Amino acid sequence: MDKIRIGIVGYGNIGRGVEKAVLAAEDMELRAVFTRRSPSSLKLFDGTIPVLPIEAASKMTNGIDVMILCGGSATDLGEQGPYFASMFNIVDSYDTHAKIPEYMASIDAVAKKTTAVISTGWDPGLFSMQRLVMESVLPDGKCYTFWGHGLSQGHSDAVRRIDGVKNAVQYTVPIDSAIEAVRSGNRPDFETRDKHVRICYVVPEPGADKALIELTIKTMPHYFADYDTTVNFIDNEEMAANHSKMPHGGIVMHSGRTDDNEHVMEFSLRLQSNPEFTGAVMTACARAAHRFSREGAYGAKTVFDIPLRYLSPKDRADLIKDLL
Amino acid sequence: MDKIRIGIVGYGNIGRGVEKAVLAAEDMELRAVFTRRSPSSLKLFDGTIPVLPIEAASKMTNGIDVMILCGGSATDLGEQGPYFASMFNIVDSYDTHAKIPEYMASIDAVAKKTTAVISTGWDPGLFSMQRLVMESVLPDGKCYTFWGHGLSQGHSDAVRRIDGVKNAVQYTVPIDSAIEAVRSGNRPDFETRDKHVRICYVVPEPGADKALIELTIKTMPHYFADYDTTVNFIDNEEMAANHSKMPHGGIVMHSGRTDDNEHVMEFSLRLQSNPEFTGAVMTACARAAHRFSREGAYGAKTVFDIPLRYLSPKDRADLIKDLL
Repeated sequence: MDKIRIGIVGYGNIGRGVEKAVLAAEDMELRAVFTRRSPSSLKLFDGTIPVLPIEAASKMTNGIDVMILCGGSATDLGEQGPYFASMFNIVDSYDTHAKIPEYMASIDAVAKKTTAVISTGWDPGLFSMQRLVMESVLPDGKCYTFWGHGLSQGHSDAVRRIDGVKNAVQYTVPIDSAIEAVRSGNRPDFETRDKHVRICYVVPEPGADKALIELTIKTMPHYFADYDTTVNFIDNEEMAANHSKMPHGGIVMHSGRTDDNEHVMEFSLRLQSNPEFTGAVMTACARAAHRFSREGAYGAKTVFDIPLRYLSPKDRADLIKDLL
Repeated sequence: MDKIRIGIVGYGNIGRGVEKAVLAAEDMELRAVFTRRSPSSLKLFDGTIPVLPIEAASKMTNGIDVMILCGGSATDLGEQGPYFASMFNIVDSYDTHAKIPEYMASIDAVAKKTTAVISTGWDPGLFSMQRLVMESVLPDGKCYTFWGHGLSQGHSDAVRRIDGVKNAVQYTVPIDSAIEAVRSGNRPDFETRDKHVRICYVVPEPGADKALIELTIKTMPHYFADYDTTVNFIDNEEMAANHSKMPHGGIVMHSGRTDDNEHVMEFSLRLQSNPEFTGAVMTACARAAHRFSREGAYGAKTVFDIPLRYLSPKDRADLIKDLL
């Protein structure tokens, strides 16, 4: 069978994760990485892969089966999604939850002869799939999502923007007693601060007012004010030694009943690299985009539309034999 | 929207579980229960539902959208599957892993204008779905399934069919140290007997040859031959007092890597009633059978063929808003 020809748009952490996943996939071939930066400035994991300016993509519609968009929701995908979906089958990890329907409509409007699988990754993505299955099986139930132990990019950035902060990372940590309360089958109600704590590691600028930094973090609306937050001041060396990885993870839990019996379902992830795992999920979804497209099933899709076997390189008979 | 009209074939533990799930589903209506026993001998959860002899089903093809087959793989479905699939959309829980392809072919051969979603439940079923997703996302990895602690319906039935056995239950018990070994990320290799033990409680008929019963159990292919199995003979009173519940559960775990990062995915179930939960999964799959059928997607399907949203009564926009 011909290999699925993949292009990558954007080469940050997720782009690197997708590159590794595509190179490891036997049924795929990485054709090119497209960037807005100077192509020569990118150092790929596989140095033999062509790096091209993003403008070159529009001339390669016959050479790439699926374009995996690795930009962020806040600044990149609003433009890049519809632009690329008008020419290519695409996969992205659009994750601004409140705006997904609007984004999806903007993609669907242009994907007339292409297929776009949007909002993949693990949340939205794998976690969403679990929530749907769990709720469908046990409608008399309650679903909970916990995130972490993991490094949150958005919260880390928010701390880094504070005056006097030289560098910072923020970890989201689920509260064990809350997870245990769900496991007990009691279907508890939680306030925001009951489910997670936030832990910051901050390298201050020399002479910075640490008390003020700590107060600014802990009272920051949306990001920290609703949580119990711990702020630890550390130096550059400790930051480099202990906080350069990007671990993440989480749990989706559903506690539900049938008649007078209680059941608990859980799906958990423990990831040493959030962007590499996200890239691996996006790469599996690229198979589905390709498959849909070959069937003429065009337009914007989500993970809810995918027959699961479309995620696998194996054929149907082997999947039934090996995994059913 | 018209409700999905459901029929149930077979009214054992799973049939009762399906009845409860269908009655709890807002988008479904339970039309009838079909039995090989005397209809008047059945006591339904909802006494207003008609109970009919199984032969009456063939005259009701216009009144039932999906027939949920609640018989067992060993003795019922081999005949009932093709018989009902030739007339109705069906869902079943065929679970003799080694024979699924053959069974599926026998269904596919007759399901020319109907849709059959076979081998649903939680394993095969939900666990199969997890294995497929996990393996597709992290192909450089290894997947493990553990069952229990729990009473296995299929294995208990298999013991009960042995000559001289009056009643029996079988518990599958995962070996904790094996689960921890997988969590460590080491990707251990296991023999079948390293992962689980099987424990049987058997009430013999008066005068039965206990040694022969024990030998028959321990050497039964597919079910017991590859495990360390303990057989305990007990009396009716102990059976009623200690073994009348049907708990079950298990874990699917996948340990895999991307580049030099390790990731662990887990899906677990803790079920107070295996047949009620199995019935709940089959009921969700009945939505998919109905949906496929309305689209003209006929023939034998498995959970790998189902777009996840077909499992839910919610419409696509609500699923995206609420769960993605």
